[in-house]
Amino acid sequence: MPNGQLKISTISNVELVNITSEIDKILQSQPISSGVIHLFNPHTTAGLIINEGADPDVCLDILQGLAHMVPRNLGYKHREGNSPSHIMTMLTGSNLTLFIENGKLQLGTWQKVFFCEFDGPRTRSIRWKIIADPQQPFANTLAS
Amino acid sequence: MPNGQLKISTISNVELVNITSEIDKILQSQPISSGVIHLFNPHTTAGLIINEGADPDVCLDILQGLAHMVPRNLGYKHREGNSPSHIMTMLTGSNLTLFIENGKLQLGTWQKVFFCEFDGPRTRSIRWKIIADPQQPFANTLAS
Amino acid sequence: MPNGQLKISTISNVELVNITSEIDKILQSQPISSGVIHLFNPHTTAGLIINEGADPDVCLDILQGLAHMVPRNLGYKHREGNSPSHIMTMLTGSNLTLFIENGKLQLGTWQKVFFCEFDGPRTRSIRWKIIADPQQPFANTLAS
Repeated sequence: MPNGQLKISTISNVELVNITSEIDKILQSQPISSGVIHLFNPHTTAGLIINEGADPDVCLDILQGLAHMVPRNLGYKHREGNSPSHIMTMLTGSNLTLFIENGKLQLGTWQKVFFCEFDGPRTRSIRWKIIADPQQPFANTLAS
Repeated sequence: MPNGQLKISTISNVELVNITSEIDKILQSQPISSGVIHLFNPHTTAGLIINEGADPDVCLDILQGLAHMVPRNLGYKHREGNSPSHIMTMLTGSNLTLFIENGKLQLGTWQKVFFCEFDGPRTRSIRWKIIADPQQPFANTLAS
Repeated sequence: MPNGQLKISTISNVELVNITSEIDKILQSQPISSGVIHLFNPHTTAGLIINEGADPDVCLDILQGLAHMVPRNLGYKHREGNSPSHIMTMLTGSNLTLFIENGKLQLGTWQKVFFCEFDGPRTRSIRWKIIADPQQPFANTLAS
C-alpha cells in the first residue's frame, strides 16, 4: 500500500504544527477513493493530535495545559534533561488513523491535525500508510 | 468498506457515555465475520476512551481526575472559554481501533467504549469504518 | 488475518514492560512482508505506549510524571481503590497501530513499545492483529 514520510521542520522548542494541508497533498497524489490513512510519529519527544485549528489560541492553551500537567522539575533521573518532553509524548500519542472518502480526508468541521514538537527546534518526520478499501465491484465480478 | 455515523445526544456539560451496545448493533447489521472497526471522533471538545463499565463510579473518578489535571482557570487565551475541554480532548484522543472476531466486538472482560463529552450538552456523532479481513479461502481458490 | 495474544507477567504494582522483541517475534513467525499490526490492550488498569527504550530512567520519569498528574487520594468513589490506575489507563490508551515493511517493525531510532502495568503484579495479555497489504502484483495479474 502507498506509504511515505512527511518532513516537518519545527522552529521552536515547543509548538504545535498544523500538518493538515500536507496530508491533503498526500491524498491528492494517490489514486485512492476510500480507505484510511495511518499516521505514525517515530519520535519519543514529539506527539500527534487532532484539535481545533480555527483559533491559534487553542494551540497555545493546549501547550499551557501540558506545561501545567508536566512540571519542568520533578526530580527526574534521565540525564538528558528532557523528561517532560517524553511525558508529553506519552500524553499526546504516536498514532492517528484518519478516514478517507471520495479521495478526501474526513475531519470534523473544526478539526486539524497537529504535529506536536516538545524538544525542538528539529527536523522531524511523520510516516504515513494508506489502506485503500478493496474495490468492491471488481471483487464482486470475481466472485460471480 | 462499510462506514457510517453514530449519533449521540449528551445530557450534561461533562459526562462519559457508554456506546458499546451501539457499536455491537453496528456489527450485527453488517455481514462481517472478522476484521477491525475504526472509530473516529470528529469533535474538538470530546474524546473517545475504553475503560471499566461495571462500576459507574469509575467514570466519575475519571472525570474527577481530568478536572484535577486540567484547571478551569490557567490564564487561557481562547475567548470561547472552553480551553479545558480542548485539553481534555487531547488527553482522551480521537481514535480507537477495535477487533472483530466471529462477528463480535473483542473487548476485555471489564471494558466498555465511552464517548467523552467535555462541552455539552450537545448532539454529537462518532464515525465508524469497518475493515473486513479478506476472505482467505476465496483468495486461496483464486491463487491455485 | 493473523491474530493472537501476547502474555505478559508483570512483577511490580506499577511498571513499564518493553514488549518490542515479543512483537518482533510475532512478525518473524508470520509470512507478512508489509502492512500494519494493531495492538489492543484488553485491560482497564493497564496501558500501551511507545517511548524511549535506550535509557531505563525515561520509563521511571514517565511513571513519576503519571504519579504527579494522578494523585492517590482525590476523594475517589470507586470502592476497589484503584481509580488512579483507571485514570492512567485513560492517559496511556488501549491501542497502537505499527507499520510493517520488509517483514520488519518500523519504529523510530529510539522507540520501543511498552506495556504499562498500573495495578500489578498480574498476568496480562495484549491482543494483536496483522492487516497485510494486498499482494499488488497478484492483484495486477487479475486485473489485466
